[in-house]
Amino acid sequence: MNTSTPWHLARRAARMNPSVIREILKVTERPGIISFAGGLPSSKTFPVAEFDAACAKVLKDDPSGALQYAASEGYGPLRDMVADMLPWQVDPNQVLITTGSQQGLDLVAKVLIDADSKILVESPTYLGAVMAFIPMEPEVVSVASDDHGVVISDLADKADAARFLYVLPNFQNPTGRTMSEHRRAALSALATERGLPLIEDNPYGDLWFDTQPPAPLTARNPDGCIYLGSFSKVLAPGLRLGFVVAPKAVYPKLLQAKQAADLHSPGFNQRMVAEVMKDGFLDRHVPTIRALYKSQRDAMLNALAHEMPVGDPDSTLTWNSPAGGMFLWARLPKGMRAVDLLPFAVEQGVAFVPGAPFYADHGDERTLRLSFVTPSVEEIHRGVAALAVAMTSYAATVK
Amino acid sequence: MNTSTPWHLARRAARMNPSVIREILKVTERPGIISFAGGLPSSKTFPVAEFDAACAKVLKDDPSGALQYAASEGYGPLRDMVADMLPWQVDPNQVLITTGSQQGLDLVAKVLIDADSKILVESPTYLGAVMAFIPMEPEVVSVASDDHGVVISDLADKADAARFLYVLPNFQNPTGRTMSEHRRAALSALATERGLPLIEDNPYGDLWFDTQPPAPLTARNPDGCIYLGSFSKVLAPGLRLGFVVAPKAVYPKLLQAKQAADLHSPGFNQRMVAEVMKDGFLDRHVPTIRALYKSQRDAMLNALAHEMPVGDPDSTLTWNSPAGGMFLWARLPKGMRAVDLLPFAVEQGVAFVPGAPFYADHGDERTLRLSFVTPSVEEIHRGVAALAVAMTSYAATVK
Repeated sequence: MNTSTPWHLARRAARMNPSVIREILKVTERPGIISFAGGLPSSKTFPVAEFDAACAKVLKDDPSGALQYAASEGYGPLRDMVADMLPWQVDPNQVLITTGSQQGLDLVAKVLIDADSKILVESPTYLGAVMAFIPMEPEVVSVASDDHGVVISDLADKADAARFLYVLPNFQNPTGRTMSEHRRAALSALATERGLPLIEDNPYGDLWFDTQPPAPLTARNPDGCIYLGSFSKVLAPGLRLGFVVAPKAVYPKLLQAKQAADLHSPGFNQRMVAEVMKDGFLDRHVPTIRALYKSQRDAMLNALAHEMPVGDPDSTLTWNSPAGGMFLWARLPKGMRAVDLLPFAVEQGVAFVPGAPFYADHGDERTLRLSFVTPSVEEIHRGVAALAVAMTSYAATVK
Repeated sequence: MNTSTPWHLARRAARMNPSVIREILKVTERPGIISFAGGLPSSKTFPVAEFDAACAKVLKDDPSGALQYAASEGYGPLRDMVADMLPWQVDPNQVLITTGSQQGLDLVAKVLIDADSKILVESPTYLGAVMAFIPMEPEVVSVASDDHGVVISDLADKADAARFLYVLPNFQNPTGRTMSEHRRAALSALATERGLPLIEDNPYGDLWFDTQPPAPLTARNPDGCIYLGSFSKVLAPGLRLGFVVAPKAVYPKLLQAKQAADLHSPGFNQRMVAEVMKDGFLDRHVPTIRALYKSQRDAMLNALAHEMPVGDPDSTLTWNSPAGGMFLWARLPKGMRAVDLLPFAVEQGVAFVPGAPFYADHGDERTLRLSFVTPSVEEIHRGVAALAVAMTSYAATVK
């Protein structure tokens, strides 16, 4: 009789860990706290009435189609809409509907990563992407990045034999930064020259505040890029729908991986979204999200300018001014660590996410991510004021 | 300038292939054909009015909750309902809601299979499971199986160092067979003694016709089994919801794999299903599915008895009589191959799936799977008559 556990876990399981950020979020989700921590779109932006009408219509028009098993590629009319809305010539046959864009990352990992394959990421990078890549046991290499995106000279040093570079060029999670046109052109040229595939993740690109960001990297070289998009930020995350646009060299394998992963994304949800999006709904809806998020970014910038002391970057808090998206990136004075500030902040009723876990290599312990889209303008002001108090309390313990 | 393709596919991609069955289905899905080929639940069984009411209620009661990001584990009330409806003591904390039970298979593969790990499957087995396991590069070993399930002596010979045995004990896809109580007891005893984990897949268990099947294997040894269930056959596949019940030794890793795979299954869909299921809806609804499918199985058995010649098993078609589920398994006379019969059948306006692709090793070329749930009773009679004509035409070419 074998009384010990019979389970022998795969080697990759040892590299899979609970998301550090999810664990932090649990601590900070106590009632009454103002949270700059989460990455949740504002629920005010969810088009509830439109979803309601769409559900009824989908179930009336073709209940059998909506509720039956369906093609792994996705719902035809939705694939057409995705191809139409992208700013380069996209064949709908190259569009794969996924269960959130997170699934796109999982499929990319399965199809492109062997154990010990080198893959490149920005510094810092989206943690969920690293979580999706890690089970396939890559060597994750950080490329140095500045305010405009990856540093081209460092990328050139590291590009050899890399399976791909994963980039989030618009209003990046976690930094909120946007890759400049100049940098995009240089990156695209280098990638083409060196045969380096790009995985371009663009969940926030539609959420620009003043001017549209430069053209996607994929638009410059569709055969050398896989592009990931999402309906989570322009409609709602709870339907779990995203998409991948992939060149012919990889699409069939992504499709087979998709079929093995969950057969297909919910056909009912795909028809709901197609129904809501017809007649150009997003053209009317997305500007309202932009306006809301811009006002909340402005509130956070104003509150920071008002509450935080002015001085040199080593002795005061510094922060950037994102041109879109959901996140602002800040850096503490020298000698302070964001993870140590967090308990003081929670004590004052405000939460954020430390930035270090977003780095695939040694993280900058002074950094933190502030989301400005979930709390209201009034809460943003109160939250930033509370953060200033927390910093003073924490500073007293550091000296 | 690198002009060749920059894409370097992972080694596993070479082992991923389009589903043979999906390819066959494409051929057989031409209009007007009577299809015994697909594995589609009858759309007559979809509770459309209940879904419609549930959508409206969910969007009215808590639109923000339903449409926002949510916990990877799944929606609490739905996890409670799953734990409650299973016939052994299940802690809701051990329930993980998945994007169809297909995703459960993908998560199991990620957490338990290393390259070259030995895994055991029935002979034949569910092709979708093999498709989910293959990307993790296992050595797939078939265990001999008879009308009552896996043959215990053969399992005993092969159990050493296997990561798990994958079994579908109730109304199996593709054979429709059910593992007897005697066989379950012997399998459970052997698995416990040898420390062999079991992956028990039970998508059809509720669809019994006369008597409930014996208790699940997991009920006999919950710490040694992962149990997979689905809402696809009792409610509708198009919502893509299933679940995994896993012991404490593996649950956290399955959860981390789930989080990396798609963050969470659609919260909206989970609430829809919880809303429909409350007040014991399945207790009223599932018996209507059983009655419908039983009448269709009976129609197929009657049609086969009426249309097919009687004789010894080497010179006539033989078939089984499934006690539930969706599929019947048949075997052609000696010298005939199901794949060669198919064009004659399609010519006569009827389709089926050859059985050989369901075997992980050398398939029995004489076998075929007949689904009795998608066509109507009248179509079943016409389809079986057409199949008899096709067999005669095909037989003339074999002689």
